[in-house]
Amino acid sequence: MPKDIPNGSVTTPAGFLAGVAVAGVKHADSTRPDVGLLFSDRPCTAAGMFTRSTVEGAPVTVSREHLANGRAQAIVANSGIANVAMGQTGLRDAREMAAEAAAKLGIRQDDVIVASTGVIGWAMPMDRIRKGIRQVEVRSDGGIDLARAIMTTDTRPKHVAVEFESNGRTYCAGGIAKGSGMIHPDMGTMFAFLTTDAPVEGACLRMLMRSVVDETFNMVSIDGDTSTSDTVVLLANGAAGGEPIRSNTPAADSFREAIYSVSRRLAREIAADGEGASKLIEVRISGARTLEEARKAARTITVSPLMKSAVYGSDFNWGRIMMAIGRSGAAIAMERAEVSIGDVVAYTRGAAASVDPAAARSALQGPEVTISANLGTGDASAVAWGCDLTEEYVKINAEYTT
Amino acid sequence: MPKDIPNGSVTTPAGFLAGVAVAGVKHADSTRPDVGLLFSDRPCTAAGMFTRSTVEGAPVTVSREHLANGRAQAIVANSGIANVAMGQTGLRDAREMAAEAAAKLGIRQDDVIVASTGVIGWAMPMDRIRKGIRQVEVRSDGGIDLARAIMTTDTRPKHVAVEFESNGRTYCAGGIAKGSGMIHPDMGTMFAFLTTDAPVEGACLRMLMRSVVDETFNMVSIDGDTSTSDTVVLLANGAAGGEPIRSNTPAADSFREAIYSVSRRLAREIAADGEGASKLIEVRISGARTLEEARKAARTITVSPLMKSAVYGSDFNWGRIMMAIGRSGAAIAMERAEVSIGDVVAYTRGAAASVDPAAARSALQGPEVTISANLGTGDASAVAWGCDLTEEYVKINAEYTT
Repeated sequence: MPKDIPNGSVTTPAGFLAGVAVAGVKHADSTRPDVGLLFSDRPCTAAGMFTRSTVEGAPVTVSREHLANGRAQAIVANSGIANVAMGQTGLRDAREMAAEAAAKLGIRQDDVIVASTGVIGWAMPMDRIRKGIRQVEVRSDGGIDLARAIMTTDTRPKHVAVEFESNGRTYCAGGIAKGSGMIHPDMGTMFAFLTTDAPVEGACLRMLMRSVVDETFNMVSIDGDTSTSDTVVLLANGAAGGEPIRSNTPAADSFREAIYSVSRRLAREIAADGEGASKLIEVRISGARTLEEARKAARTITVSPLMKSAVYGSDFNWGRIMMAIGRSGAAIAMERAEVSIGDVVAYTRGAAASVDPAAARSALQGPEVTISANLGTGDASAVAWGCDLTEEYVKINAEYTT
Repeated sequence: MPKDIPNGSVTTPAGFLAGVAVAGVKHADSTRPDVGLLFSDRPCTAAGMFTRSTVEGAPVTVSREHLANGRAQAIVANSGIANVAMGQTGLRDAREMAAEAAAKLGIRQDDVIVASTGVIGWAMPMDRIRKGIRQVEVRSDGGIDLARAIMTTDTRPKHVAVEFESNGRTYCAGGIAKGSGMIHPDMGTMFAFLTTDAPVEGACLRMLMRSVVDETFNMVSIDGDTSTSDTVVLLANGAAGGEPIRSNTPAADSFREAIYSVSRRLAREIAADGEGASKLIEVRISGARTLEEARKAARTITVSPLMKSAVYGSDFNWGRIMMAIGRSGAAIAMERAEVSIGDVVAYTRGAAASVDPAAARSALQGPEVTISANLGTGDASAVAWGCDLTEEYVKINAEYTT
């Protein structure tokens, strides 16, 4: 089992350094660090997953290109402006950020990943960004600073690291993430940067990453809106030595467990810190016909505004769970299905259960609400995370003014 | 062109009668009419479209059965309880409602459509419902009363009728609808009952109905949550005489235009009266690669909570339109695309347009906001309707208590 490392982050694994600077990306007079670098002291095998939006940010386009060879050594990131819908100017600016970071760190331009989050449709102030990047000093304890620099309306930095055993050695895996919302919110942008000092073969890294992302970050929804800039990058630098970890080996299983543990925790933190959120919602679907149906049902419950509002109001409104399952298109056998909120069974064996109102209410109070449903049509299962819908969400997103 | 008939409804076409009664479906002591009948003095060719949810209400199941022969003569409807997730009891109750209405009206049980809207998972109080149905007296001016009896958290009844010419004769088509929300809100239930005194062949009726529903009711979204009880029924009784209207004739075109006009108006009214809504949003997509992509893009914009919040706050946040188009999966050519809010162009020819702040703000004020986007990838187009997201929506749906 991976072991938690207190105050861990992307720089906890050996050989990773990070640093930040104040560039004033959105407002020239801002004093908040808003650009940063993550750097490995040697090239890494690398994998990335990006937004599936048909409107993708220029940094996403450039990062896809740079990751095509499965290698990377640094990430340059900024908050404030997302560099989306800017045409050729946007692409040029994203490439220049990579070039500037490469020059600063003495590495190849195509070994730099670019990640920008913020307003859509604004030009990057390249003079200030260039100056900012030049000022960054990377340090072995800089990971949490970087987690702060990529925040927008996030209320807290999200960072984690774990220790794990693989091939008889002790390795470390770490991550930072930013979730939904900005001071100037245009999208629910999600970044997660993951690192490990274990040596991992490229094919193994890509495969494990995809399967872990599908179970963690891809199961988070704050508001159902998909960002143009979603980016998850995993860097393995091998600084802790040992034999390369290959697919379908016990070593790969241990590594997967570590990356899963880091990703799951960051995913839950993103959900809990959604815009305006007062409660984390965990949805557990079991007894589904297929994995795809289990995931669809779980995600549909987490995005339903009616369900999210009910959780906010601590309203034991299990009919909305049924509605969301039905809407998802997942097959459900009503005569075998079971639905619970917390430990309180709401529906079982074809009928509404008799529910104690006090128990029902308490199942919905507290900072984390669990919704479980067995669809009675198979044995596939999935877990998804979301948050409640509050008046605060509407306020944050209505009161933006240019 | 179909001509509007002031204060029209489902009983404006000849031969249609309606009436309501107080049954106390949800609360025995309620004084609000909550059951009703729509009746044609002769059998109708009939078509229906129902929720695609995998959790469908018992009334939907029974109505599908009764419409299988393409014939109907009455609708029995209630608000308060939806009769969903009630197993065999629910089916028995829905059938009994049809039987009771048939006995009252002296027609066949399988010529009665059943429509129930309200709480999921509660049993129907059949004693009170039976008594209510027996008390209903149908009248030729009862349509608007019926529109009221099916309301839940709707703030106003939705009814319309138009006159149209077909085969050299004058006919009438009418409709009533209920939209999203309930006093005890469990779902965004939508009912629309449409009538005409024109004689229409079954095949023609079914085909026209499907195509009109796809362009109108299926393009409305209040909150992205699909109800377990959505029901649209179209009844043609031929009471105004003349030759049957057949597919692919000029007469069918005129009839389609009338039904489209009735449906579009009801659809817009449903959107404008969404839970907590302060503004109607009309989204017009053009230049899409396919009709399906045009519809997906339009609907994704209408359901985006970020876009809906921005409209509420009169925030000229066109980046969120791009985000929603990207999320929808519709192909967009960024260098040719154009996006406007009202008459104000936000993005054109690969770049953000320069926008006058006062014009931008005024494009978002007023009771109706129009969002237009040309995707630059083809010539398909679609229109969708929705409403803004307000704190009131969250309040309505959080503050329900059992």
